[in-house]
Amino acid sequence: MNLLEKKFLKLGAENAPGQEVRQNTNEVILRGEKISGKLVDFSHGNVDAFKPIPGSLDVFIEGVHLGGKQAYTEYRGSKMIREEAAQKLENFSGTTIDAEHNLIITPGTQGALFLAMGSIIARGDKVAIVTPDYFANRKLVEFFEGEVVPIQMDYFNSTTSAGLDFTQLEDAFKAGVKLFLFSNPNNPTGVIYSPNEIKEIARLAQQYGVTVVSDELYSRQVFDGRTYTHLCAQNILDPENVITIMGPSKTESLSGYRLGVAFGSARIINRMEKLQAIVSLRAGGYSQAVMKSWFAEPTDWLNQRIMQHQSIRDDLLAKLQTAEGFKVRGTEAGSYLFPRIPELDVPVEEFVKILRLQANVIVTPGTEFGSQFIDSFRLNFSQDHEAAVAAIDRVIKVVELYRK
Amino acid sequence: MNLLEKKFLKLGAENAPGQEVRQNTNEVILRGEKISGKLVDFSHGNVDAFKPIPGSLDVFIEGVHLGGKQAYTEYRGSKMIREEAAQKLENFSGTTIDAEHNLIITPGTQGALFLAMGSIIARGDKVAIVTPDYFANRKLVEFFEGEVVPIQMDYFNSTTSAGLDFTQLEDAFKAGVKLFLFSNPNNPTGVIYSPNEIKEIARLAQQYGVTVVSDELYSRQVFDGRTYTHLCAQNILDPENVITIMGPSKTESLSGYRLGVAFGSARIINRMEKLQAIVSLRAGGYSQAVMKSWFAEPTDWLNQRIMQHQSIRDDLLAKLQTAEGFKVRGTEAGSYLFPRIPELDVPVEEFVKILRLQANVIVTPGTEFGSQFIDSFRLNFSQDHEAAVAAIDRVIKVVELYRK
Repeated sequence: MNLLEKKFLKLGAENAPGQEVRQNTNEVILRGEKISGKLVDFSHGNVDAFKPIPGSLDVFIEGVHLGGKQAYTEYRGSKMIREEAAQKLENFSGTTIDAEHNLIITPGTQGALFLAMGSIIARGDKVAIVTPDYFANRKLVEFFEGEVVPIQMDYFNSTTSAGLDFTQLEDAFKAGVKLFLFSNPNNPTGVIYSPNEIKEIARLAQQYGVTVVSDELYSRQVFDGRTYTHLCAQNILDPENVITIMGPSKTESLSGYRLGVAFGSARIINRMEKLQAIVSLRAGGYSQAVMKSWFAEPTDWLNQRIMQHQSIRDDLLAKLQTAEGFKVRGTEAGSYLFPRIPELDVPVEEFVKILRLQANVIVTPGTEFGSQFIDSFRLNFSQDHEAAVAAIDRVIKVVELYRK
Repeated sequence: MNLLEKKFLKLGAENAPGQEVRQNTNEVILRGEKISGKLVDFSHGNVDAFKPIPGSLDVFIEGVHLGGKQAYTEYRGSKMIREEAAQKLENFSGTTIDAEHNLIITPGTQGALFLAMGSIIARGDKVAIVTPDYFANRKLVEFFEGEVVPIQMDYFNSTTSAGLDFTQLEDAFKAGVKLFLFSNPNNPTGVIYSPNEIKEIARLAQQYGVTVVSDELYSRQVFDGRTYTHLCAQNILDPENVITIMGPSKTESLSGYRLGVAFGSARIINRMEKLQAIVSLRAGGYSQAVMKSWFAEPTDWLNQRIMQHQSIRDDLLAKLQTAEGFKVRGTEAGSYLFPRIPELDVPVEEFVKILRLQANVIVTPGTEFGSQFIDSFRLNFSQDHEAAVAAIDRVIKVVELYRK
């Protein structure tokens, strides 16, 4: 097998959200009857249940009518839109952002992540990745031929912090890790890093000269009035060694426009733009206009959205926490839950196919987030409330049918 | 300098279209007065002069109203839209395209190019690139750590073919080239490869087991009733070794939606989708809907667009061909001209800055298309007719001011 074949073998997307239709399900054998119910696709948020920011399409249409000016922006994005976004993100994160040097608009948050990783990782570089964390993180390191150094997060045995293993983190930094990439709130568990954890990450990174990419995609949707800590605002780590990633695809349901943003280090942003120039030129010109509706939602829109999600979370948690053999930590921010289930007769990747075929429910297998999570799955509960609750009942029934 | 610094040094985007605002012009010294006139940006087409396909925004809006189904498609693009596109591209190119396996929708044609290159080139692979050709081609090979093998195209000394040097091409293939990438019509010269040239490329690639990526972005806009030959339809080269790239960003002025398409080899398309999953997930979901307006333009819309461009070409050619010391071959397809100019007192990169500051005209320096083109520049004449003609007069005046 040649280099490229090996590389793409690690890039499997069969279990990625939305790719279920490409799965081979010929050999799945179901136990018992189908359990009927409305399809719920927990692999990503449902933008029909939680609609895009009001007026976002109007802003897009205005962008189209601006014509060439909006279609052909600088590769890092329209200057005017960057300036407006920088202002909003300064207010939100509490850090300083010069729109000219410290910010790039990207095709989705995934685009920001790809460009950042491609601009920081050279072949052979060690990259510390949290276990569990967003599945693309590991794949990106492998694509750029870096070396993944896993850092455990003991999310079940803490309530006041995410549970990151700082002994492992410092050992990894000592051993020459170049980049630490993590999502906060954590994807898939929905836990937030405590202020002390964030400060300690920054302190260690500063001590060992490590660059940090902080993926804060879901950081606007914080539950129960918890404290959220932006690493970039701590003034502990050299700002030229920090990139923060955000975007309006989740809480704001604007994923269909493919918009994200990265801010921080001018040196890295500059590289990201050069890479963007050969990857896809720029975030869609007209879509960039939609950035105007971000952080400019109608009064109370965000609060209401948070309350609605908190309420769905509570109902799902009540069911999952009492289901026989399940274990789950409550979501602190974002829309993910990552329940652990009892031991089954089938591997989790097959369980996920069964769930889809037998109960009309789609979830993402835990193994996407780290090979040891053979007993967990992720669900995004940004769904129709009633349908989500009914779907969880079906999940629990299917687990009963296949448990050891 | 480390590996990554070297890599990004080669990725300069300062002279790329649309990036002029980031140029350092402090040290440019102008000779004589400014030559006033309406700004013409020949670095890319003007979508205000040649507007997007009628109704394209309406199709986008319909896509938004479809909701989640349109926002979250498979990474290779919505099945329905792929099926429709496959049908149209079959008719256009004369090849067979199975929408399920042989086609991917990408964020612009640049996206298709990046994904294709990333799916074919491994570190150290030799890649044959035409000189001159689209500037990103070379940059892509370098980013993926391949080795560029330049193949000369003698576009001035031929009228019945592009002028590709087949001795060089066969020598390169013999020497182990893995991939041959070329644009047809050629960017920046606007010449078309003859049927014999296309057949010979296919024959040699088949003989030596070389994969071919044919960038046919501008292939719908063919002038003077010339014959255009699609390599994929020749049945000479194993279809699993061909990828064809197209998109509606140029002739159709849909660049602001960031849409492209690649079709051909199922193996390569499959890899491209896996790569797309970590690069930016998918072409913008709502934008994908706009593919419906492609190849479905109002009757005679395309013919009229071709005639209008042909007429601009004729007027610019008449001026350029009679200007002292200029040499230029007429565009056969697309909207590019690549004139050679007399020797100047300033390097072409500085000439380009002067032109912008002194005469309000933006062009792309020849050196972007190959280091030897120190005496050429590219212009995209998809512009307001009158303004373009006036701008060419200013270009000729500026050349007069700075010639040796």
